[in-house]
Amino acid sequence: MSVSRRGFLTGAAGVGGVAVGAGAARVLAGNDDGETRTAATPPPSDVVSFYGDHQAGIATPAQERMVFASFDVTTTARADLVELLKSWTEAGAHLVKGSPVGAVAGHPMAPPVDTGEAEGLAAANLTLTVGFGPSLFDRRFGLEQRRPAALRELPALPGDELDPDRSGGDLCVQACADDAQVAFHAVRNLLRLGRGSVVMRWCQLGFGRTSTTSRSQSTPRNLMGFKDGTNNIRAEDTADLSGFVWVGQGSEPAWMRGGTYLVARRIRMLIESWDRDRLEDQEAVFGRQKVGGGPLTGTNEHDKVDLAAKGPDGMPVIATNAHIRLAAPSENGGRKILRRGYSFTDGMDPLTGQLDAGLFFVSFQNDPETFVRLQRRLGASDALNEYIKHVGSAVFACPPGVRPGGWWGQGLFG
Amino acid sequence: MSVSRRGFLTGAAGVGGVAVGAGAARVLAGNDDGETRTAATPPPSDVVSFYGDHQAGIATPAQERMVFASFDVTTTARADLVELLKSWTEAGAHLVKGSPVGAVAGHPMAPPVDTGEAEGLAAANLTLTVGFGPSLFDRRFGLEQRRPAALRELPALPGDELDPDRSGGDLCVQACADDAQVAFHAVRNLLRLGRGSVVMRWCQLGFGRTSTTSRSQSTPRNLMGFKDGTNNIRAEDTADLSGFVWVGQGSEPAWMRGGTYLVARRIRMLIESWDRDRLEDQEAVFGRQKVGGGPLTGTNEHDKVDLAAKGPDGMPVIATNAHIRLAAPSENGGRKILRRGYSFTDGMDPLTGQLDAGLFFVSFQNDPETFVRLQRRLGASDALNEYIKHVGSAVFACPPGVRPGGWWGQGLFG
Repeated sequence: MSVSRRGFLTGAAGVGGVAVGAGAARVLAGNDDGETRTAATPPPSDVVSFYGDHQAGIATPAQERMVFASFDVTTTARADLVELLKSWTEAGAHLVKGSPVGAVAGHPMAPPVDTGEAEGLAAANLTLTVGFGPSLFDRRFGLEQRRPAALRELPALPGDELDPDRSGGDLCVQACADDAQVAFHAVRNLLRLGRGSVVMRWCQLGFGRTSTTSRSQSTPRNLMGFKDGTNNIRAEDTADLSGFVWVGQGSEPAWMRGGTYLVARRIRMLIESWDRDRLEDQEAVFGRQKVGGGPLTGTNEHDKVDLAAKGPDGMPVIATNAHIRLAAPSENGGRKILRRGYSFTDGMDPLTGQLDAGLFFVSFQNDPETFVRLQRRLGASDALNEYIKHVGSAVFACPPGVRPGGWWGQGLFG
Repeated sequence: MSVSRRGFLTGAAGVGGVAVGAGAARVLAGNDDGETRTAATPPPSDVVSFYGDHQAGIATPAQERMVFASFDVTTTARADLVELLKSWTEAGAHLVKGSPVGAVAGHPMAPPVDTGEAEGLAAANLTLTVGFGPSLFDRRFGLEQRRPAALRELPALPGDELDPDRSGGDLCVQACADDAQVAFHAVRNLLRLGRGSVVMRWCQLGFGRTSTTSRSQSTPRNLMGFKDGTNNIRAEDTADLSGFVWVGQGSEPAWMRGGTYLVARRIRMLIESWDRDRLEDQEAVFGRQKVGGGPLTGTNEHDKVDLAAKGPDGMPVIATNAHIRLAAPSENGGRKILRRGYSFTDGMDPLTGQLDAGLFFVSFQNDPETFVRLQRRLGASDALNEYIKHVGSAVFACPPGVRPGGWWGQGLFG
C-alpha cells in the first residue's frame, strides 16, 4: 500500500497552513493528513515516520537507493540558516509521506511549489537525514562554542587520496528511498528551497545498498561480489545502538543527545584489477568465502569468525592482513560502527578509461574517533588496499530526531 | 517469481559446455536451463527472452533502470572482433536469465568467471541491446562496403554543445533492468570479457525510465515534472513498429533487416532555471498540462492534441514553438520514433555548482534521418531550448535479433 501524491502545484492541503519564516525559503505546512487518507486509515507501509527520538535513515532498514548531498552555506546571517532548517524540516515532513513539499501562499504567478517529478510515485520509504559539518561551527553563525568536541575534520589517514571537491561541507542531507527518483526529487527540492542560503558542494548517487540494518533484510553484495555487512549493527540490536551509535543522555553537548556522527567516504574500487585476481586470493583478502559469505574458518555466513584458527601450515586461516580481521570489533577495542553504504558508479574515469565505481561508505557512530582508529588500521595494513582508494571524505554531526512542531537543529540554534 | 542465481564462480551448468573461440574472451555455454529450474517449470516472469526476430530492449516494456556503455574497438584483427561478439552473445544469454556469465574451462587458478555482485538478485527483466557505430565500418575490419547508407555520424544540429568524450563509439551495449545492480553487473562483465579487444569510451547510468513502450505501463515523469512519452510507439502498435522502427524485409543492407537504428543524446536539463519558471510558462513550453499531462487543448492525458485550436485572442492555444507541436508526427511528415530514455544525474557540475541532471534520450527508428529532421526543427525553434542542452550524441546500427546458436552481428561478419 502506498500514498498517492496529490496537488503538487498547490500543496496537499485544501486549507492554507501557517507561513513559516520569510524569504525565498518560505514554505507552508499542509494539513498533516492532506487529502490522501483520513485519520481512520492506517499509515501506508512504505512511509517511514519523520518524527522520533532519533533521525530516520540511520537505524531504519536500509532502502535500495541513496542520493547524498553536501552543501556549503553562503548566507552569513544566522537567521537565514535557521529559516533554512525550518523550511527543510517542513518540506521533509511532507516529502517522506509522498506529498509535495508544500504551498507558497498567494502567489499565482509563482513557480510551482514542487518540481513534480515524483508526482504519482509511492512514498518509497523515503528518509531524510541531516548533518552539520565541522565548518559550520564558526564565527559566521556564532557557533564556535557549540561545536561538539568529537566533531573535527577527519585527520589525514593512511592511503588517503582525497579530492577536496568530493569532501567536506557545512551541511549534509542523506536521502534514502526504494525509488531513486523519489530520493533525487527530495534533494532537488531541498536544494531549491535553499537557494540564496546554500549551494551544493558535492552530490553522490548510490544505486544499490551494501549494508543491512535490520534482521528482516538479507545481506547484499558489494561490487567486489562479496556479501557486505554480515556483522553490521541491526535496528534490533538496541544495546549496540545505545552503546555505539546514539550519543548518550549524559554526553555533551546536550543538543547532540540522541544524535550521532556520520562519516562518509567515497571508496573507489579498482574493479578491473580485482576482476583479474583469482578466487583464492580474493577470499584471502576478505577472510570470507565469496559465494556463501561464511568466514574462512566456517561454512555459513553467520558462523563465528575464529581469528585464532591456524591451518596445517601453522599460519592463521584468516590472514593477519585480512579485511575482516583488521575490521573486527575484537581487534578494535570492542568498538562497533553502524554501516549504511551504497554501491555507486559515475560512468568512466576519463583519466584511466576504467569504471569510476565503488562503495559510498557511510557509517554512524557516537564518536567519529571510532572510525578514525579503524581506518588507521585498515589504511595501513588491509590486504584490500591494493584494490581500493579513498577519494572523498566528510564528517557530520547528526542532531537527534525532530518532534512535531520542532525542526532540525533546534537544540543547536534554539 | 524470479530466478535464483547459482554457481557464479564455476558456471551454472553441472556439465561443462563447449568452448567458444579463444583468448581472453573465452566463455563456455552452460546448460540452458542450468540448475535453477526444470523443463516443466514455466519461465520466470522477470526473464525477457534473449532470442527473437528483433533484439530485446527496444519494444520490450521499458524497465526502470539503465546502464548504457559505448566502446572503442582496440584490436585491429577482425577475428578478435568476431570472437568478442560471440562471447558477448553467449554471456548475454546467461545474464538475462539471472545466471552467471559462464565458466572458463580447466583453469582452477583463474579469476572467478563472474564478478558476483548480482548473485542472489533476480533476473529483473534484464535486456542487452547491441549496436554498431559508423566508425566500426572502416578498413580495420574490411567493413567499408558493408556500412548501411543510413548509418552516418549525425550532422551538427542547432544548439549542439557536444562533449566528444560523451559522444560516438564503435560499439554500444544498452543494458536495461528493473534493478540497477543487475544492469551494472551485465555491462561490467561484458567489459571484462572484452578486455584486450575493446575499451570503454563512455558510460551512462539512468535511474528512472522516462518513456512507456507498452500499453500495460503508465506514463512516467521526466525531471521537468512533466509526463513524458504520452504518444510514444508501444509494443502493441505493430503497424508503427513495422513502419517506423524495424528495418523492413525489402531494405538494404540485408543484414540489417529486422534491426533498427539507435540514437542516443545526453540532454542536460538546466533544472535550476526551469524550477524558477512559473507554471503557466512551463505548460506553454510543452503545450501540455503539468499535473494531468493532457494537451492545453484538452483535459485528459490521452486527449487529442488540437494544433489548430485558437484562443479568444486568436493565437494558437498550443504555441507555435511549443514542444509537442514541433515534435508532432503531423508536423514531421507523419514520421515517428520509438523513445526509450532515462533520467540521469551525475552529481554536481563543478563548473556551475548546479546539478548535472537531465534526460538520457534514446530513440529507435528505421532511419536515423527521422531523428535528424526532428531535432533540426526542435533545436532551431523549441521553446524548451532555454532549459536544455544536448551535450552527448551517438548513433548505432542495431542488428536484428539472435537465434539460438547465432550471435550478435552474425549477418554482418558471417
